[in-house]
Amino acid sequence: MKIGIIGGGAVGLLFSTYLSLQHKVILLTRTQAQASVINEKGILLSNSNRNIKYDVTAYSKFEKLEKQDLIIIAVKQYDLASLMKQLMILPADTPLLFIQNGIGHIKFLETLPQETIYVGTVEHGVKKTEENQIHHTGLGITNIALFRGVREKFTCFPIGIADVFPFRFHENYKEMLFEKLIANSVINPLTAIFKVKNGKLIENLHYYKVLKQLHTEVASVFPEINPKHSLEKMIQICQSTKENHSSMLSDIMHGRKTEVDAILGAVLEHAKEMGQALPVTTMIFEAIKGMEKESI
Amino acid sequence: MKIGIIGGGAVGLLFSTYLSLQHKVILLTRTQAQASVINEKGILLSNSNRNIKYDVTAYSKFEKLEKQDLIIIAVKQYDLASLMKQLMILPADTPLLFIQNGIGHIKFLETLPQETIYVGTVEHGVKKTEENQIHHTGLGITNIALFRGVREKFTCFPIGIADVFPFRFHENYKEMLFEKLIANSVINPLTAIFKVKNGKLIENLHYYKVLKQLHTEVASVFPEINPKHSLEKMIQICQSTKENHSSMLSDIMHGRKTEVDAILGAVLEHAKEMGQALPVTTMIFEAIKGMEKESI
Repeated sequence: MKIGIIGGGAVGLLFSTYLSLQHKVILLTRTQAQASVINEKGILLSNSNRNIKYDVTAYSKFEKLEKQDLIIIAVKQYDLASLMKQLMILPADTPLLFIQNGIGHIKFLETLPQETIYVGTVEHGVKKTEENQIHHTGLGITNIALFRGVREKFTCFPIGIADVFPFRFHENYKEMLFEKLIANSVINPLTAIFKVKNGKLIENLHYYKVLKQLHTEVASVFPEINPKHSLEKMIQICQSTKENHSSMLSDIMHGRKTEVDAILGAVLEHAKEMGQALPVTTMIFEAIKGMEKESI
Repeated sequence: MKIGIIGGGAVGLLFSTYLSLQHKVILLTRTQAQASVINEKGILLSNSNRNIKYDVTAYSKFEKLEKQDLIIIAVKQYDLASLMKQLMILPADTPLLFIQNGIGHIKFLETLPQETIYVGTVEHGVKKTEENQIHHTGLGITNIALFRGVREKFTCFPIGIADVFPFRFHENYKEMLFEKLIANSVINPLTAIFKVKNGKLIENLHYYKVLKQLHTEVASVFPEINPKHSLEKMIQICQSTKENHSSMLSDIMHGRKTEVDAILGAVLEHAKEMGQALPVTTMIFEAIKGMEKESI
């Protein structure tokens, strides 16, 4: 199967490596410099056990993406708007898979001409250390759900690489995205504000109270989601990634733009549509925006 | 006038130096070691202009405090409970002045036998650098109000040292304490969470939104206070102390216990009595408790 992947960040590189085991992968990067180093040296993936080199073909020109069997859009949500014009002109029968945080991109997807669109959430822990190097810190699952179109176009994925790069198909894309959004809304900003690893949010009883308070408030605007189940899942994530820095903490520490708009911004937008005020979420949102301004 | 001062912290030492210019001061310290070094070497006060040595008599035994014309209690609020038994046996005609943060100590004062009791708030910036050394970083005002008894017992103070160590008398002790409590409830915890100097709370527009949100919530449970006036005063404090680290930030950075119970704890207690829930204040309170636990 021919798979195009848009985005040379940590997640785009991660998908490029594992999917290239079974598929013909083309990676689209923003810069020609990154494409060149990948074509020359491959993508180097390290995990706790080993280093592996994957040969992946990379381009920086959008035209090269024509005639793929699937295109995966792996850019951050805040970079999606600038891509929409180019996605519009891709063939209508090419299935697209969007793996962004948040729910803000859903309204964009409505406007696209493609018949089959999937959305996904990525639970892997992965860091980009060089333009062609990633460190796979936590083996996770990629959750996929049909946004519209034909589910069967996707059947290729779970075959063969299920053990090293598993996918799980969900029946309800909203439920899948909302659950991830709730978890991201709590774990990401709180670890960034407190400057702690994920595990501290459940180990420090005061932080745990804050986690529960923020979770209750965020979950209240997603009546589709069982709050008890979503809290349990959040605690499990903190447990299983207890030694990890969240992406938002990592972004703040490195003076990078965070995904706070795609995450807490989306929750506040959603709450506004429902006519609800979320005081703690609002405060946390502004806190992260303020910290972003101080660190960038 | 014979003045006893209880507490060898930054504020106790500050009062000891300036008041010894006009009065016979006895300082009561917790440890004999601190009393000895003060008796031997005096208290060294530095400010932006100069270093001055003040000769002050210090003791660590409570009995030495009998027969003072005024006793100033300058310990942190969380150390007050352990002093109450000793204060009970001081003469009933000795006026007492309490200069603690918060309002939690007010209920203690009701139980004391002394006829005349004052409460005060201290706006000076002062840091203790050694057991007998302080740095006076910001010249401020000491606000005084009568809690009960006779106001005239206090008239000695504003005479003579008004220019270097000013006092201001307030008619309404609750208003005075509440205004200070509201300011401390916002500036202290937010600077501690964001790890910024006071000025950043008004310079960074996102932090300023958080400041306003927390102020609105805290002020809502003090209907005696004009919220517009108290917000303006808070902005002035951030402006005039913009290069200062708040005491709470300083405590967190140095791994010391903070006054969060006396400040936000008191606000939450007060809100509870009024039957109001303060979600943002609750969250900030737990955040500081959690940070305290991580830093100590």
